[in-house]
Amino acid sequence: MAGNSFGELFRVTTFGESHGKAMGCVIDGCPAGLEISLDDIKKELERRRPGAKHGSRDEEDLPEILSGVYEGKTLGSPIAIIVRNLNQKSEDYNELKDIYRPGHADYTWEAKYGFRDARGGGRSSGRETLCRVAAGAVAKKFLSLHGITVTSSVDAPLNIDELKNEKDSAGGLVFCRITGMKNAVGLGEPVFDKLDARLSSAIMSIGACKGIEFGAGFAAAAMKGSQNNDEPACSGEYKTNNCGGILGGISTGQDIIFKAAFKPTPSIEKIQKAYTRDGSIKEISIKGRHDVCIVPRAAIVAEAMTALVIADYLLLCRCSKI
Amino acid sequence: MAGNSFGELFRVTTFGESHGKAMGCVIDGCPAGLEISLDDIKKELERRRPGAKHGSRDEEDLPEILSGVYEGKTLGSPIAIIVRNLNQKSEDYNELKDIYRPGHADYTWEAKYGFRDARGGGRSSGRETLCRVAAGAVAKKFLSLHGITVTSSVDAPLNIDELKNEKDSAGGLVFCRITGMKNAVGLGEPVFDKLDARLSSAIMSIGACKGIEFGAGFAAAAMKGSQNNDEPACSGEYKTNNCGGILGGISTGQDIIFKAAFKPTPSIEKIQKAYTRDGSIKEISIKGRHDVCIVPRAAIVAEAMTALVIADYLLLCRCSKI
Amino acid sequence: MAGNSFGELFRVTTFGESHGKAMGCVIDGCPAGLEISLDDIKKELERRRPGAKHGSRDEEDLPEILSGVYEGKTLGSPIAIIVRNLNQKSEDYNELKDIYRPGHADYTWEAKYGFRDARGGGRSSGRETLCRVAAGAVAKKFLSLHGITVTSSVDAPLNIDELKNEKDSAGGLVFCRITGMKNAVGLGEPVFDKLDARLSSAIMSIGACKGIEFGAGFAAAAMKGSQNNDEPACSGEYKTNNCGGILGGISTGQDIIFKAAFKPTPSIEKIQKAYTRDGSIKEISIKGRHDVCIVPRAAIVAEAMTALVIADYLLLCRCSKI
Amino acid sequence: MAGNSFGELFRVTTFGESHGKAMGCVIDGCPAGLEISLDDIKKELERRRPGAKHGSRDEEDLPEILSGVYEGKTLGSPIAIIVRNLNQKSEDYNELKDIYRPGHADYTWEAKYGFRDARGGGRSSGRETLCRVAAGAVAKKFLSLHGITVTSSVDAPLNIDELKNEKDSAGGLVFCRITGMKNAVGLGEPVFDKLDARLSSAIMSIGACKGIEFGAGFAAAAMKGSQNNDEPACSGEYKTNNCGGILGGISTGQDIIFKAAFKPTPSIEKIQKAYTRDGSIKEISIKGRHDVCIVPRAAIVAEAMTALVIADYLLLCRCSKI
Repeated sequence: MAGNSFGELFRVTTFGESHGKAMGCVIDGCPAGLEISLDDIKKELERRRPGAKHGSRDEEDLPEILSGVYEGKTLGSPIAIIVRNLNQKSEDYNELKDIYRPGHADYTWEAKYGFRDARGGGRSSGRETLCRVAAGAVAKKFLSLHGITVTSSVDAPLNIDELKNEKDSAGGLVFCRITGMKNAVGLGEPVFDKLDARLSSAIMSIGACKGIEFGAGFAAAAMKGSQNNDEPACSGEYKTNNCGGILGGISTGQDIIFKAAFKPTPSIEKIQKAYTRDGSIKEISIKGRHDVCIVPRAAIVAEAMTALVIADYLLLCRCSKI
Repeated sequence: MAGNSFGELFRVTTFGESHGKAMGCVIDGCPAGLEISLDDIKKELERRRPGAKHGSRDEEDLPEILSGVYEGKTLGSPIAIIVRNLNQKSEDYNELKDIYRPGHADYTWEAKYGFRDARGGGRSSGRETLCRVAAGAVAKKFLSLHGITVTSSVDAPLNIDELKNEKDSAGGLVFCRITGMKNAVGLGEPVFDKLDARLSSAIMSIGACKGIEFGAGFAAAAMKGSQNNDEPACSGEYKTNNCGGILGGISTGQDIIFKAAFKPTPSIEKIQKAYTRDGSIKEISIKGRHDVCIVPRAAIVAEAMTALVIADYLLLCRCSKI
Repeated sequence: MAGNSFGELFRVTTFGESHGKAMGCVIDGCPAGLEISLDDIKKELERRRPGAKHGSRDEEDLPEILSGVYEGKTLGSPIAIIVRNLNQKSEDYNELKDIYRPGHADYTWEAKYGFRDARGGGRSSGRETLCRVAAGAVAKKFLSLHGITVTSSVDAPLNIDELKNEKDSAGGLVFCRITGMKNAVGLGEPVFDKLDARLSSAIMSIGACKGIEFGAGFAAAAMKGSQNNDEPACSGEYKTNNCGGILGGISTGQDIIFKAAFKPTPSIEKIQKAYTRDGSIKEISIKGRHDVCIVPRAAIVAEAMTALVIADYLLLCRCSKI
Repeated sequence: MAGNSFGELFRVTTFGESHGKAMGCVIDGCPAGLEISLDDIKKELERRRPGAKHGSRDEEDLPEILSGVYEGKTLGSPIAIIVRNLNQKSEDYNELKDIYRPGHADYTWEAKYGFRDARGGGRSSGRETLCRVAAGAVAKKFLSLHGITVTSSVDAPLNIDELKNEKDSAGGLVFCRITGMKNAVGLGEPVFDKLDARLSSAIMSIGACKGIEFGAGFAAAAMKGSQNNDEPACSGEYKTNNCGGILGGISTGQDIIFKAAFKPTPSIEKIQKAYTRDGSIKEISIKGRHDVCIVPRAAIVAEAMTALVIADYLLLCRCSKI
């Protein structure tokens, strides 16, 4: 399988190219009896939706649940959700079909598969992430039964309006926090599937993510042990959360906190140099409809991926003891 | 399965508690015909071995290959390697068995499994990583057939001798580089199993790792698109490597470069407060034999994990095209 | 994951309830560059389609390819195919919603999941198999590149017309043969994933299958070693094929042959006793539109599952040697 | 991974060649807190042990538990068990190294991997099954907590003493029964991972197994629906068990019953023809120490595999409902 599935027990498989017929996901392993409605999914998709303010493709994403839900509850069978692609402008990409856009998967995809769908990035488009958000909406409903919530905030250090005028783009940071973990101490498998290892994989698999750190993160590399170890306060609380809510790969009950770095949108109208298929270098200006800064939308995707990990580990944890 | 296996096609399973009978690994899926000797494994284990200079448990790790190698070559069957634990001092841990050591998995393990092996961290000990290094030695041999090399360097910003006197510990950074990737353009699966996602999971699964970044990493969050996109030089080369050798989750042929942050050793002789099983707080001094700074050894483990990922993805990549 | 995926590298995930909105499959891991058309899929679906002659639900299954195919060739990304459910008569099932139909998954599903979709068997309906056939059509195209063909024949020992008059049903046998294996000696993994083990799992996962045997099969239990061992003829050929084309779980190059037993359709109009949800016993007559004998259709499904296994193992086999 | 692991949550990986240093298994995912002793494992290994009465290699198998058990209970970490190979007579195989023994994996292994360990079948030896039995012993302990028992019986239709005199061998049947399933209604996943599908894979993966059937099995192919459907008796009981305790791939609470066919031992002293590596045909007599009939030992292995499947599905079933 070529990496389009995520999770062990609460497992999502996604499909769809940016300018194909539809995007979609199949969730296998969602426990039966969970109340879920189309609105639960729409609400999360709306949060991710590109808006005029981002200067990007403004397409209403109308999800359809094809299976797995009956009389408002999950059946235990796979939940398939699709969203039709309605607002493609594939002709935008005609002039790019022989060019390897800088910062994109164009060259690497072709090297791997021999040819590619050049319309809007195909499978490597950011549009792929809407399926993650749809699946994450189901995971969030499952987490809500356990009193667990995933939230995010964003820091984009550059001035976005200025960059828009410069026809350039900006990166930024996503901060993620999982609360309610007191109800879920013990999540995470001790060796290769540590909770932070899986979360790292989940977040780094979002296009444009270039780094992730938990708790004190990179700062811990310059700390002494006596500083970095979280000191007990009382009643099981700690004075700090340098560990980020995870010790030995297993959740401690504290909030889980991590920070992820996203690079600037590689598609810019500003003129830049690019390789072409024949190996020459050409100056290009990428028109299309692109976010100046994808970070606000990446944050919603990061929440979804986080929810998927926690849902999966909640199930795995049911099997730790006899 | 509880997370003691890593990889899809080149897959390693590890076992062993710090103070149990033996540590070991089983590699399933190593292609047949690879030349491998005990020395190949010993050499890597020796690099990871704690030395007097680190102030840690000085135990010679003597690997034994139990299966999978015949007349100096891999058979295609599982390669099992064990290392006996010879130099345990379990009595060191008697006084810690009711205490949850700060920065360790003691409390989380107990919450998850109901009880624990308190001798030296049990399965959560850093000793677990020797199995990764043994398996990584086999992966490195496979990579060498493709001209691919994994190297690392270390930066520990604090003065280690001073910290030793203070009975404290230090964290640090590991820099990792994969060369020879020109021979392996196209590694990585485009969505959830992006090459950087899998590498993140691999490295974050090493105990004490708190963050990872690729190429420009966190700095990319403050860059413009026109700065961050790597500009073509000529002959397929680029002026920078901000992408870290990976675009869209797939290797570009450039060196792959990443940096990981490791927290200071949580076991320190310096007095610190800790929770006990009954919920009270107690002052403790952890004696035992602990590295002031584990980062030099973590670097060897990071190399091994990296080699395992690349070996796995080299095999997966054989199936991308008809 | 709850068992709706099949295969390691050529991996299919299916979804859909009999009376839900749609059935579908997602194939992840199909190599890029394979020519595939909607007709390839329609042709196989048509072979499986229930006909008036079987007395069953006569619904034209119109597949739609949502992703993964571009300009007539597979992209390397997931291939999603859906078929809308158009001809449901859910009201047929109203009177059955508190009854556990004999020979069906009604009681077991409820015990497992707490409630069920009683319309036409829901996820446990035979309609689920159309997704296998759609995916199998893609696998068959891949096999055709290797000169490998999967064929089947059927033996239904009872007189079907008589049984129809009796409002009863009949079982039967499916014979399957894989030719062209000379091009694919060495398929199968030696221990748990033997080729015959995986094929058994594939075929036994078809509803109503109750047994499978390879080559001499059950007859081998009454043979002497000197009889059962296939005797060399010349030029690598054998006088018999008692082994069924597989030795030690690995293909020999001979045709692979197996036989599977299918029980009679459990839904019969003839009056029979059944448990109700409250534990009482009631006499029922199941109306609906049911095949007197599902075996002709099961054969097409068996071909599809076989093709999926061989496609998967062809890919796995690319990784056996350095 | 090349097929040396079995199971999803209760997952065993095995290793070892017949004439290598050791055989072994690693069980990952056994829940913590299960009481297990070396005697539990020895007892099952003793049942499988070849005896003088079978005329086969009489080697005492002394298991050693290397990890995962602490103070008599499972820790939740991987349980590694090894058995040293002590009684090899590798020289027995010298004259066979260029010959492809009829009914063995010699030719297929070489075709797959390029070369082989010719000593006693290497990885394809029946000795591999001792690791299954060791792992199965742990699974059986877990099943005993749920009141579930796996038993077997054997039918070898030919006269074994006669065959021994003829230097020939015999096949036979294994009957397996799982009792106590009333405590475990609902095991099995509805589509590809049906309980009977997984059991088929488990049993067919035992070398020499050529067929399997559940409940009425092949006889069901000649039955009418009204005969084959199990008729309710009262109190949830049924008058027959044609379904073999499984409907729609999910356990009903009845005993699970299946029958498996094993071919005669392919290694016989009686003269037979065989291909050699250069393609010629030679007459051979296989000396060595071989069972006239492996079926009594295969039955113990079948029990072990069955126990592994049920243990795995008991864990999976914990995740069916919210």
